[in-house]
Amino acid sequence: MDDRATSMRADEPEAILHGGDLAAISRRHPDAPRPWIDLSTGINPIPYPVPTIPLASWARLPGKSEDDALRAAAAARYGVAEPDMIVAAPGTQALLQILPRLRPPTTVAVLAPTYEEHALCWRRCGHRVGLVDDLDALAGADVAIVVNPNNPTGRLLPRDALVSLAAQLRRRDGLLIVDEAFIDLDPADASLAADLPPATIVLRSFGKVYGLAGVRLGFAIGPDDIVRRLRDELGPWAVSGPALTIGTTALADAAWLEQTRARMANDCLRIDELLSKAGCAIIGGTPLFRLVTSPHAPDIAELLARHGIHVRRFPAQRDWLRFGLPGHESGWQRLARALDSAR
Amino acid sequence: MDDRATSMRADEPEAILHGGDLAAISRRHPDAPRPWIDLSTGINPIPYPVPTIPLASWARLPGKSEDDALRAAAAARYGVAEPDMIVAAPGTQALLQILPRLRPPTTVAVLAPTYEEHALCWRRCGHRVGLVDDLDALAGADVAIVVNPNNPTGRLLPRDALVSLAAQLRRRDGLLIVDEAFIDLDPADASLAADLPPATIVLRSFGKVYGLAGVRLGFAIGPDDIVRRLRDELGPWAVSGPALTIGTTALADAAWLEQTRARMANDCLRIDELLSKAGCAIIGGTPLFRLVTSPHAPDIAELLARHGIHVRRFPAQRDWLRFGLPGHESGWQRLARALDSAR
Repeated sequence: MDDRATSMRADEPEAILHGGDLAAISRRHPDAPRPWIDLSTGINPIPYPVPTIPLASWARLPGKSEDDALRAAAAARYGVAEPDMIVAAPGTQALLQILPRLRPPTTVAVLAPTYEEHALCWRRCGHRVGLVDDLDALAGADVAIVVNPNNPTGRLLPRDALVSLAAQLRRRDGLLIVDEAFIDLDPADASLAADLPPATIVLRSFGKVYGLAGVRLGFAIGPDDIVRRLRDELGPWAVSGPALTIGTTALADAAWLEQTRARMANDCLRIDELLSKAGCAIIGGTPLFRLVTSPHAPDIAELLARHGIHVRRFPAQRDWLRFGLPGHESGWQRLARALDSAR
Repeated sequence: MDDRATSMRADEPEAILHGGDLAAISRRHPDAPRPWIDLSTGINPIPYPVPTIPLASWARLPGKSEDDALRAAAAARYGVAEPDMIVAAPGTQALLQILPRLRPPTTVAVLAPTYEEHALCWRRCGHRVGLVDDLDALAGADVAIVVNPNNPTGRLLPRDALVSLAAQLRRRDGLLIVDEAFIDLDPADASLAADLPPATIVLRSFGKVYGLAGVRLGFAIGPDDIVRRLRDELGPWAVSGPALTIGTTALADAAWLEQTRARMANDCLRIDELLSKAGCAIIGGTPLFRLVTSPHAPDIAELLARHGIHVRRFPAQRDWLRFGLPGHESGWQRLARALDSAR
C-alpha cells in the first residue's frame, strides 16, 4: 500500500482545501464584481424549493416518528428494502467523523485521489491509512474506501468490481465503504444501496443533488449492527427538525429529480463546450461538476476570481480545476465572458 | 465512588427515557383530546420568533464567516472574552457524544440524579462511570460532571464550590464539565462561562431557553486545546445554515431574553400554585421546569395523559414528576382543569 505523504496529516487538519467558502476568496479579491458565482462545489445550483417549515419542526425535539418518516422516504428513494438499514445524520461529513470508530486501529486503504476527509478522519482516530490508485490494491486493507462516482475525477466504478471487492473484504472480516455523494443523477443501478453486498456501507448525501447543503443531511446504509453503532455514536436528535421535514418531502419528489436530471445533462453539454473553447480538456466529472486540466489552470482560476467566479483548485494537481455548474442565465453569461477573456 | 446499577448500561442505550416524544404517548392514549400539550421537556413553550432564513443559508455550505458570527454572538451573550474559546455544535447532545473522546478510558463521576446521557456517553466509550450524590465525592475522579442548575432537581451549585472543585481536579490533571443547559434565566453570575476556571468545560444549550430545540444548536466553552479537539471531532459544517442564522440573531436579542425571563418567572408562580392545589409538593426546578413529588405521581401522570397532557416521569423515582410550562392560555386552562379533576 502506498503510504504517500499528503497534506492530510492529523496534526494539520486545516490543510484540507474545501470548496464553498466564498468569504475567504472574496476577501482576496475585494474588487471582483458581485455577487460571486460559486462554482467551487458540486452542489446543484437550483435548489429543491424549500417547503414551509411548520413551527413545530423548529420548536420541538425531533421525534422518532419524524426520523422514521425520513428513513422511509430515503429507503424508497434509494431502493433500500428495509428503512432500519438506514441511519440519518446531520450531513454525510458527520458520518465520516464517526465511521473510524467502528474498528480498533487498523489498516485503511482509500482509492485516491479523492475527497480528502475520508483519510483525515481515519488517521485522526489512529488508523494506518494508505492511498492507493487502483481498485485491486484496496483488498489488502481491513477497511477499503471508495468514492463512487469519484470526486473530483468522476470515475464510476463497475458494480461487479465493487461487489467482488466487498466479497474479498468480507472473507477477511473487512469492511467496504462506498461514498455515493454524487451518484444521484447517474442511472439507478450504479448505486450499491438497493442491493447492498455484505460488509458494505453506502453513504448518500442529500444536500448536493437537492442543492441544500446548508440543511445538513446525509445517510449511511449498512448492516443492522453497523447502523445501530452509528446511531449510538450520533446520539438522539442528531438531525434537525427542518432537515427531517425538507428531506422527507424532497426525497419523495420523483418528478423534481427527473427534471433536475434532464436540466443538468443539458447544462453539462453547455459548460463542456465553454470549457473546451477556453482550452481546457475535460478529463472527468459527474452531472454536478466537471474536472478539467490545463497547463494554465492556476491563471484561469485567478482570472475567473477577478471576474467574481470561484472554482476549485487542487494544490496537489496544479493543472486541474473543478467547475460546478452555474444556475441562472446571468451566471452562464458571466462565465462565458470570463472564459472568453482567457483565450 | 458509588457505582450504582442504573438503567444506563452501554448495551441498553434505549433504556433512557427522554421527554418530548409526543408520538409515543399519543399512541398509548389514542382517545386523549388534541392537540397534545407537551410539558415533558424543559423547553420554553413560546419560541424565539424564527427570522426569515435567506435561501443561501439552506443552499450553501455554511462558511467560516457564519461560524465566526455565531460564536461572536454567543461570546457576547455568555460573557466569554474570546470567541475562540467557543465551539458550536448541532445540539449540546452532539457535544456529549464526543466529550468522552477527550480522554483515554478513565474514571468519571457524575453528580446524580441528573440527565442520564452524560453517564451513558462516557460508559459507551469505555470509561468507568460512577454516580455520586455529593459535590465532594466528585473530586476523586479524573473527570467530574455536574449539570447546573441540575435537571430535574433544579439544584444550583454555589459558584465558589465549583471553582474549588475545578482547582482540585486541575491539580490532578482532571477535568470539570459543567452542563449549564438550563441556566439562561438564572442571574448571570450563576454561570461559569464568563470567568472559566482552568480545566473546565461549560456547555450551553440554545434550544431550551429560545424554545427552538428542533434547530439543534449548542456550545462548549473551554480552554483552547479542548475547543480545538472538539472542533476536530465535530468536523467541518457541523452546524446547519439556518441554525447559524437563527442563533446569531437570537443570541444578540437581549430584550427578548428579558421579556422571557419576566414572563417565565410569573408563569412559575402560576404553575406552582396549580400543582400545590393538586397536592403536589414542589421540590425543585428552574424557570423552565418544575419538579414535584407526590405519592400519587403515577396516577397523576396517567390522568394528565388522558387529558392530552404529557409530563415527564422518572422510572427510578416514581414519586417525581417534572412539568414544563404551558405556553398559551388554552394550555393553562386545560392543565388547570385536568389537575382539578385529580384532587
